[in-house]
Amino acid sequence: VDEFNSIARLFQPLAAGAPEALGLLDDAAVLPARPGYDLVVTKDALVEGVHFLSGDPPDLIARKLLRVNLSDLAAKGAEPYGYLLATAWPAAWDEGRRTLFAAGLARDQQEFGLKLFGGDTVSTPGPLTLCVTMFGWTPEGAMVKRSGAQAQDVVLVSGVIGEGHLGLAAATGRLTADDAAQVRFAGRYRVPEPRLSLRACLRQFATAAADVSDGLLADAAHIGAASELGVHIDLDRIPLSADARLWLEGQDDPLAALTALASGGDDYEVVFTVPQGHVSDAALSAAASGVPVTVVGRMTAQAGCRPFYHGRPHTVARLGWSHD
Amino acid sequence: VDEFNSIARLFQPLAAGAPEALGLLDDAAVLPARPGYDLVVTKDALVEGVHFLSGDPPDLIARKLLRVNLSDLAAKGAEPYGYLLATAWPAAWDEGRRTLFAAGLARDQQEFGLKLFGGDTVSTPGPLTLCVTMFGWTPEGAMVKRSGAQAQDVVLVSGVIGEGHLGLAAATGRLTADDAAQVRFAGRYRVPEPRLSLRACLRQFATAAADVSDGLLADAAHIGAASELGVHIDLDRIPLSADARLWLEGQDDPLAALTALASGGDDYEVVFTVPQGHVSDAALSAAASGVPVTVVGRMTAQAGCRPFYHGRPHTVARLGWSHD
Repeated sequence: VDEFNSIARLFQPLAAGAPEALGLLDDAAVLPARPGYDLVVTKDALVEGVHFLSGDPPDLIARKLLRVNLSDLAAKGAEPYGYLLATAWPAAWDEGRRTLFAAGLARDQQEFGLKLFGGDTVSTPGPLTLCVTMFGWTPEGAMVKRSGAQAQDVVLVSGVIGEGHLGLAAATGRLTADDAAQVRFAGRYRVPEPRLSLRACLRQFATAAADVSDGLLADAAHIGAASELGVHIDLDRIPLSADARLWLEGQDDPLAALTALASGGDDYEVVFTVPQGHVSDAALSAAASGVPVTVVGRMTAQAGCRPFYHGRPHTVARLGWSHD
Repeated sequence: VDEFNSIARLFQPLAAGAPEALGLLDDAAVLPARPGYDLVVTKDALVEGVHFLSGDPPDLIARKLLRVNLSDLAAKGAEPYGYLLATAWPAAWDEGRRTLFAAGLARDQQEFGLKLFGGDTVSTPGPLTLCVTMFGWTPEGAMVKRSGAQAQDVVLVSGVIGEGHLGLAAATGRLTADDAAQVRFAGRYRVPEPRLSLRACLRQFATAAADVSDGLLADAAHIGAASELGVHIDLDRIPLSADARLWLEGQDDPLAALTALASGGDDYEVVFTVPQGHVSDAALSAAASGVPVTVVGRMTAQAGCRPFYHGRPHTVARLGWSHD
């Protein structure tokens, strides 16, 4: 592969129309100041065989790469702007696979209003390794942090939980479920849905927020740690899809199964905290944006993340995955 | 390795005092607007065995990682601000090696006035893979691009050329030179010197600039391509260190050897263009900042990069390395 021509053919179209990218012909990108706004920046790396499966279609790998980074922006109440991409290609990633990969980027750029601003292309003797730096905007001081929760704030989560856990199991042939559910779960694992439409709700009502990448319990615990509080989570209240509920009903140990869903990671929902008096308004705002949210717990003065089941405390071995 | 504790122990001290980093406890970093300034952003990835040697000391790998990114800022006339770091650790990179790596980051953070703003830590079954996103500032519109050169502009280069090429040869035991020269060359390869002190000179006088990472000829050609011009380079005028000159004198084919130095890459000098009438002032400004610069050629209306030797055109097989 001729790297120079490959970059021109695959990536320059993804930067077209972005003055920041300087046609991908320069040493750097240049982002003009936007007075009154903060630039929100996140950087996630994905490694083949660790964060996605070796056989995953190249376009879906590209879309997951953008979406896990967009999910971080979503949880911060930020509006997507653009991104830098570093690719370390193994020899097996020939021009055909790279073309499919670029097509996945192009599709989600259009879906989310993104442009490629720059990056780096290198080769590796190891697995495909990808790194995105994603940029977004919030009005000055409006970014929703992990650290703003108050004791007695209510904990809510968007969408449904456990799809990432079940999706990985389905994608690796370890799940017992009907074919349609298998396909749907695997699709959720491969192409998560960043909850960007929650932006208005989060900016108006959330005292703290995080995206659910490590597992609901783990990411709620991150909010707790950053806010110097504890978290009480009712496992009974965790929102599940109809398919997940059906799967759960087939499990011998429903508590263990529910715990697996709540600690499995890769859901890319948003867990956030809201003062008690604003919960109804926050839920209405979220629903109006097309994303249902569910109350799953509350912040406590006592440190630690404590899951409850049928009103009784439940000890879990692991709150989530650290994605290491 | 417990990733959560490892991040806290190794990386949180590198983010101390940077409000942008939010204590590395959040999903994202937040960069406040700096009205009147542009944010210059570059992203370089380094792979073990491709961009550095497997046995290189961890602290020197960390310093090279920062410095190759800082070199991009230097060539753009930008002032360093901070960075995001993604590390994909192989299993062999235990806490001891990571601690040395973090010490290298700390040392160069202090040297260059940088803070860590955030990033990602993952594991890999492959080689150590590192990716930095480096941020810098220039006054609005003042970034020195690759695309601004004019025909007849003079081409200058900072410092000396060929140290990267000789340094890699020394570090891999393929160089014939005395011990002191070997050590010095290898040091230049492992810990390059970003030419940040050229900032005032570049902002005032340069019409275009690039850092010399792929090779002097290749990077001069990048300026030519971005500016839709050609480049004439006099190989006879390329600045060399005393050690490099001694090495050159020992070579059977001095033209081939000189070409190797001019296309070897990893020099991390700055190649830039200046209108003819400003060359003396630019050279004085650079010298005043402690960095000598040398005239090595000029921009031409005819496209292509043409090296000359003793006044005659010389065809080279390869202008440089694409660092793929």
